[in-house]
Amino acid sequence: MTKPILPSWRPGPVRDSILDFLVAAGEIPPEQRLAVFDNDGTLWSEKPRYPQLDFLVWQLKRSVADQPDLSDVPEYGAVLSGDRAAIAGFGLERVALALLRLFENIEPEVFEQRVRSFFTEARHPDHDCRYDQMVYQPMLELLAALESHGFTNSIVSGGGTEFVRAISHQVYGIPPERVVGTLVTYELVEEGGRPLLLRTATVQGKMNEGGAKIENIQTVLGRRPLLAAGNSPGDADMLQYTNTSRLPSLALLVNHDDDQREYAYESVAGTFESEEPIGETAARLGWTQISMKDDWAAVFPDR
Amino acid sequence: MTKPILPSWRPGPVRDSILDFLVAAGEIPPEQRLAVFDNDGTLWSEKPRYPQLDFLVWQLKRSVADQPDLSDVPEYGAVLSGDRAAIAGFGLERVALALLRLFENIEPEVFEQRVRSFFTEARHPDHDCRYDQMVYQPMLELLAALESHGFTNSIVSGGGTEFVRAISHQVYGIPPERVVGTLVTYELVEEGGRPLLLRTATVQGKMNEGGAKIENIQTVLGRRPLLAAGNSPGDADMLQYTNTSRLPSLALLVNHDDDQREYAYESVAGTFESEEPIGETAARLGWTQISMKDDWAAVFPDR
Repeated sequence: MTKPILPSWRPGPVRDSILDFLVAAGEIPPEQRLAVFDNDGTLWSEKPRYPQLDFLVWQLKRSVADQPDLSDVPEYGAVLSGDRAAIAGFGLERVALALLRLFENIEPEVFEQRVRSFFTEARHPDHDCRYDQMVYQPMLELLAALESHGFTNSIVSGGGTEFVRAISHQVYGIPPERVVGTLVTYELVEEGGRPLLLRTATVQGKMNEGGAKIENIQTVLGRRPLLAAGNSPGDADMLQYTNTSRLPSLALLVNHDDDQREYAYESVAGTFESEEPIGETAARLGWTQISMKDDWAAVFPDR
Repeated sequence: MTKPILPSWRPGPVRDSILDFLVAAGEIPPEQRLAVFDNDGTLWSEKPRYPQLDFLVWQLKRSVADQPDLSDVPEYGAVLSGDRAAIAGFGLERVALALLRLFENIEPEVFEQRVRSFFTEARHPDHDCRYDQMVYQPMLELLAALESHGFTNSIVSGGGTEFVRAISHQVYGIPPERVVGTLVTYELVEEGGRPLLLRTATVQGKMNEGGAKIENIQTVLGRRPLLAAGNSPGDADMLQYTNTSRLPSLALLVNHDDDQREYAYESVAGTFESEEPIGETAARLGWTQISMKDDWAAVFPDR
């Protein structure tokens, strides 16, 4: 008797297309079997806010408790009072960069520890569980099926590389070198003969969205993927890059249409230069669309 | 009966220090067991010239056969006629950048194929074998021992990332995402609805030498190594970064003192800002120094 594969995927054309792809990939040398996954909204829930944003606010509250005058920083004040109009006025990027300053001059290991504390302590506002329990069970099963078929799984996220790396091994079984995201810059210093790296508050290069995802897949992972999964316009380039490989390939778009078990929304995040809704892009270009409502028998792991 | 470990390493303090380290690393969570290796002169021979340089010249000769007026390019003319004075006048960096133009506007897969052809066809000038047969047998055994002890092995080379990646899996069992080197920049274009990346002739960021190796280890591999091996001043920062980890660590310096089986020379390549010979740095900082002559029972695999 064989162990059932993809048990949380309902029988139907989407599950079939994954199984067909796994069989076809068996003909390809294992070193070319690369799968890339967006993170927010693809592997775990990004609602009501990106987990990373909630982490930054969580850290801000802790920092203000130690150092009350931080709340005088206008961006921090707006975040702490939940003043959406002020935040919108600053723009999300400026607010995010201001929040990055909370981690200036610390070693990467210290940052990692803070991220892990967040995942241990913080509770998701709607589901009252740990944030890492907002991972999608069917995607965990897809990662496992790919790995058992010789694939190298990786995460290609618009979020912070180090944020995702802090939990990628524990949550997804993906080691840090296979997490590609937006990077901060480090400063190399020496303390008592010990070289060490300190985080700065500046981002290295471009945000990892849109076409940058393609470039970073090549420069970090070194080959064109055979499978890509995403959910937003920021993933469109990567999905189409994968879908037009000269080898068998599969491009998967997660559609958030389940307001009972998760959320129902059309994703508009990212940098894809188009007014076209992402579902229409997917239909036009022949990607495989996952309906969370119809294709997934379970959304989250048992809690 | 257990399989012998490190059979090409002669018994003595160097081999003992590796065995002691492997035992100590058993106490550390596997996800932190990262080993980084310089490539040229550490994993394979870099003499009489870097293999990558011989590859560039090999490609130049092929390109000139197709397109004879290329030899009018001054840097190419100097290389083709072996005019060392002219090459020195241009400087190695300018010559290397000129040679990079031979690969402008090609896809990464095409570049990779050319590198593989070189390794299949070209013969090492002194040893009359394939270049990949100039790999050091004791280092292959060290890679295997580390892997069997749960380590993630990676290459951190000053050379071109894509050049090393083309053969890293076959030669070292190291997949492309664990090769950190000097990167070219890509241009993202679309051909008939197909997004693709084309190589440019410009280098992305800094050469991967000296302090840049530390920064790139963090940004690409995501943690501080427990073991580092190198042979030149360009590896000194990385070796000391590893040696001052707060966990058990091992910094290995390969000394080229075997003019019978390999070459005898003092490595001066790299960017370490010091007049001090690298062996003296190693002695001062307490790294483990490998004498090729004394510590290795065999240098190369059986050919």
